[in-house]
Amino acid sequence: MVLVSVKDLAAWSVNAFTAVGVPKTDAESAVEILVSADLQGIDTHGVRRIPAYVARIRDGIFNPAPDISVEQRGDSAAVVDGDDGLGPVVGSFGLKTALRLAEKTGVGYVGCRNSQHFGALAPYARHATQAGFVCFLGTNAFTTMAPTGGREIRLGNNPLGLGAPRADAPPFILDIAMSVAARGKMRAAAEKGEPIPEGWALDADGNPTTDPEKGLAGFVLPIGGHKGYGLAMMVDILAGALSGGAVSTEVKSLFQQKDQPQKVCHYFIAIDPEKTIGRDAFLNRMAVLCDLMKSTTPFKDGAPVLIPGEIEARRFETRSENGIPLDPDFVDELQSMAKGAPPRAVASA
Amino acid sequence: MVLVSVKDLAAWSVNAFTAVGVPKTDAESAVEILVSADLQGIDTHGVRRIPAYVARIRDGIFNPAPDISVEQRGDSAAVVDGDDGLGPVVGSFGLKTALRLAEKTGVGYVGCRNSQHFGALAPYARHATQAGFVCFLGTNAFTTMAPTGGREIRLGNNPLGLGAPRADAPPFILDIAMSVAARGKMRAAAEKGEPIPEGWALDADGNPTTDPEKGLAGFVLPIGGHKGYGLAMMVDILAGALSGGAVSTEVKSLFQQKDQPQKVCHYFIAIDPEKTIGRDAFLNRMAVLCDLMKSTTPFKDGAPVLIPGEIEARRFETRSENGIPLDPDFVDELQSMAKGAPPRAVASA
Repeated sequence: MVLVSVKDLAAWSVNAFTAVGVPKTDAESAVEILVSADLQGIDTHGVRRIPAYVARIRDGIFNPAPDISVEQRGDSAAVVDGDDGLGPVVGSFGLKTALRLAEKTGVGYVGCRNSQHFGALAPYARHATQAGFVCFLGTNAFTTMAPTGGREIRLGNNPLGLGAPRADAPPFILDIAMSVAARGKMRAAAEKGEPIPEGWALDADGNPTTDPEKGLAGFVLPIGGHKGYGLAMMVDILAGALSGGAVSTEVKSLFQQKDQPQKVCHYFIAIDPEKTIGRDAFLNRMAVLCDLMKSTTPFKDGAPVLIPGEIEARRFETRSENGIPLDPDFVDELQSMAKGAPPRAVASA
Repeated sequence: MVLVSVKDLAAWSVNAFTAVGVPKTDAESAVEILVSADLQGIDTHGVRRIPAYVARIRDGIFNPAPDISVEQRGDSAAVVDGDDGLGPVVGSFGLKTALRLAEKTGVGYVGCRNSQHFGALAPYARHATQAGFVCFLGTNAFTTMAPTGGREIRLGNNPLGLGAPRADAPPFILDIAMSVAARGKMRAAAEKGEPIPEGWALDADGNPTTDPEKGLAGFVLPIGGHKGYGLAMMVDILAGALSGGAVSTEVKSLFQQKDQPQKVCHYFIAIDPEKTIGRDAFLNRMAVLCDLMKSTTPFKDGAPVLIPGEIEARRFETRSENGIPLDPDFVDELQSMAKGAPPRAVASA
């Protein structure tokens, strides 16, 4: 691994996008989101996604220069059509629109349709908290889960989350998928020949299994059984149905369906604490809540209770200072892409 | 069990409240919520709660005639102070305020503080959908869960939910606690001498247990581990911190701390689909989503995939027609309370 500074990483990333026709301001807002994920240590959802995003643009599937439009029928609600643009471009636009509405009226709902995979939720949540807002957000995703009692895959792991500012402390940032465990973790167990914990997956006949191969051939389970099924549907409603966009199997895969745009939908519900109970009163309440969590006696000495987002905030500081650890091969690829070369996966395809 | 008509049950219930000084309109709005729970089959959160609520009023702990106030600093956000009134009175007021804001601007956030246990979420969600709104809602609750990694109880099971209307079909209604299983289920297993499934609880030392006695002496687990911990905190933020109300252990128990008001907080985020993508377009999208779920091949013949709220909507119809099944002793007690007698638990205390 080499350590790359935020400045270099952002510059190469922006150039990798502009090289395939993404307008500079769009590239910059996408890169802000992706680099924020890397800074927080959410490595799978940061700049490593750029080759796939760029490949889809080169294939003519993602729109490099979308005409993003906003339809607004109420003072605190808007729908954004992403015109098949890059996910982080559309998502960033949607978030900023929601914050603007919330600034005016106290609350803003924005649903985004015709977007793509938009990275992790945490960067959007962090951005909102830095502007002083609470933000409840989510996105639908390519389907990997079955509805409870069903034997066909019909729901994405549909992550949802919340960002909430704290005074003199890292923001509360929740960013969670509605599946118990990612398929990637099952693949890792399968490669090591290890069993998976009960509750992660069902086999193809709907029986609980601890065999990762059977789980991979079967179904990822939602958190809390029918509860997670309902939560995943909730995200499809808030992101997809309310924006007039794609839901369930209408959402396509970034990797398995390379011939069509993904049609992912996101939602952002921003709330300005200044317009509920007042900023200071809110921050005081947050301090009481977080202190009550953190002062809980831990089960293990030296492993105190953490606030969601706390580890990521620490990483953000360290990596902002020291740089982001990246594979040298990936850095080479990104630098080449910044000069206009195709991503390797495409070159070798 | 005897079958009691909605009309009789509502009349006795309203009188049971007015007999202890609750104004008639407040009593009616509380009873609408409680009877709706019974009609939906959520028997633990319906009229059976009235004796406890009335007892707290008679003890001078709950305020029978609260001066409920609204503070509004933005066009789409408001904070309600329930003045220690009955939960369903404060909750109903909060919900209606959120719907009114959403009708004007597209979205309405209302946080309610200084309330009490307000019953199930489903009646509020159902009310919102009948008015044509999507409503994301939740409530904090007396603490029963530990934060992940901690050995002290610091979080309620903090239920959250969503109501969303459907055309020519029962509304989507999600109403779920953030715990894997209720303590009541562990007590039932303990009484039968049966083990509980892994994942329900930890023992007092933080080890997974299938012994219900050890689980009862230990900790209820949140859904999805740290995910449910984060979700329960999210509810405390949206309900408690944003309303300037009680969070975590500041919320008191209906049954264990009878000498003080509970200080429960709720939140309602109502969205008018007419002001996002338009009502018809939204309902079309809901139909596509729900049809995709319901058409999933089931694991078991004759056990089709269900939409959250579907069973409850069927019960609502049946019970509206045939009456609500109730224990004759309870009916006697309620009828006596309607005439001014104290609830039995109080009489025998």
